[in-house]
Amino acid sequence: MNHHAKGLFITLEGGDGSGKTTVMRELELALEEHGVPFISTREPGGIEIAEKIREVILNPQHTAMDARTEALLYAASRRQHLAEKVEPSLDRGITVLCDRFLDSSLAYQGYARGLGIDEVLEINLFATKGRFPDLTFYLDIEPEAGLARIAAGEGREVNRLDMESLQFHERVREGYRIIGGMYPERIKTIDASRSKEEVAAEIRGYLSAAIKEFMA
Amino acid sequence: MNHHAKGLFITLEGGDGSGKTTVMRELELALEEHGVPFISTREPGGIEIAEKIREVILNPQHTAMDARTEALLYAASRRQHLAEKVEPSLDRGITVLCDRFLDSSLAYQGYARGLGIDEVLEINLFATKGRFPDLTFYLDIEPEAGLARIAAGEGREVNRLDMESLQFHERVREGYRIIGGMYPERIKTIDASRSKEEVAAEIRGYLSAAIKEFMA
Repeated sequence: MNHHAKGLFITLEGGDGSGKTTVMRELELALEEHGVPFISTREPGGIEIAEKIREVILNPQHTAMDARTEALLYAASRRQHLAEKVEPSLDRGITVLCDRFLDSSLAYQGYARGLGIDEVLEINLFATKGRFPDLTFYLDIEPEAGLARIAAGEGREVNRLDMESLQFHERVREGYRIIGGMYPERIKTIDASRSKEEVAAEIRGYLSAAIKEFMA
Repeated sequence: MNHHAKGLFITLEGGDGSGKTTVMRELELALEEHGVPFISTREPGGIEIAEKIREVILNPQHTAMDARTEALLYAASRRQHLAEKVEPSLDRGITVLCDRFLDSSLAYQGYARGLGIDEVLEINLFATKGRFPDLTFYLDIEPEAGLARIAAGEGREVNRLDMESLQFHERVREGYRIIGGMYPERIKTIDASRSKEEVAAEIRGYLSAAIKEFMA
């Protein structure tokens, strides 16, 4: 293993049924094989302040919550998780795998909910102090195919609610594609409709290249 | 009283001992005399989601809170108070008097805490959707004079802690002056070192002019 000053910051994005959990395990396995010390996390990541913020967001009684309030709260939770957990790890040379990060806010709230990608990006740049992941995998799959996978896995029929949300997930996917176009170097769009083996091979290729490039 | 589509949005800013409470009462009295329907409020203003956010900010156990997290939480609380209470009132033609608003974040967090006025402004513009008060009174007084007033009123000596924070309050005042320069039309800087009567007369003058201008 190389000695290096900073860890790699890797994020994973993708909708329901895109295989995010499987890919996360694959990345962990690959990092172990490379001898790269890492942690896996996801917001709010056990950070108390971030957890408290998340409770405000998710409280089902908060039906009056404005979309902008929600976007600011996600950014606040992100900031605290980044400052307390992600950055101290990276600074100690530990690679951080994070399940969802700012691109989720851009796709879901910025694009699909209509707040505007650029506007949501600005508050997130404030939150991250301009820090972006070094590498982001976006697992791209047609929402209908992702849904079918879930239905197969859970042994249940796709229901009316799932179908109603299909349009929303189409918009989320459109959002991710736009964001992928904004950051072509950072974001690797992975065709997640293929077999696990094919997806794993592509992800491992990008990861090896990133380790060589960032940790040389 | 004129019939008008929108209420006036008036905010009040100023540090400890600047006489904000007295001026608020004076404004309420003047609006009553003008026959202008109004409400008085301050963030979080009894709005449940905003109150919950404020609890996260003020929890004394949250010593690890990052300055950016705090700024985002203030902006989130502001958004919800604005969306649930301030804007619905203004839209019904009711004037809103608000004790502190976005200029407080710009002066305290943007300038005095060093996050940057422009950066804190951006997240607040997201929160307010670009909405500014129609009129803002900034009660300007030397921190030392404000502190002396408090000491006189409370019958206590100015203590070491008060003196230590003096430098911080000097920075807050510098911040307000910069912001006043950014919005010379909106922000009326009031010399609050004068007598109550002099301050009241000046405030009433600006208020009458604003009522004529905005509600004609």
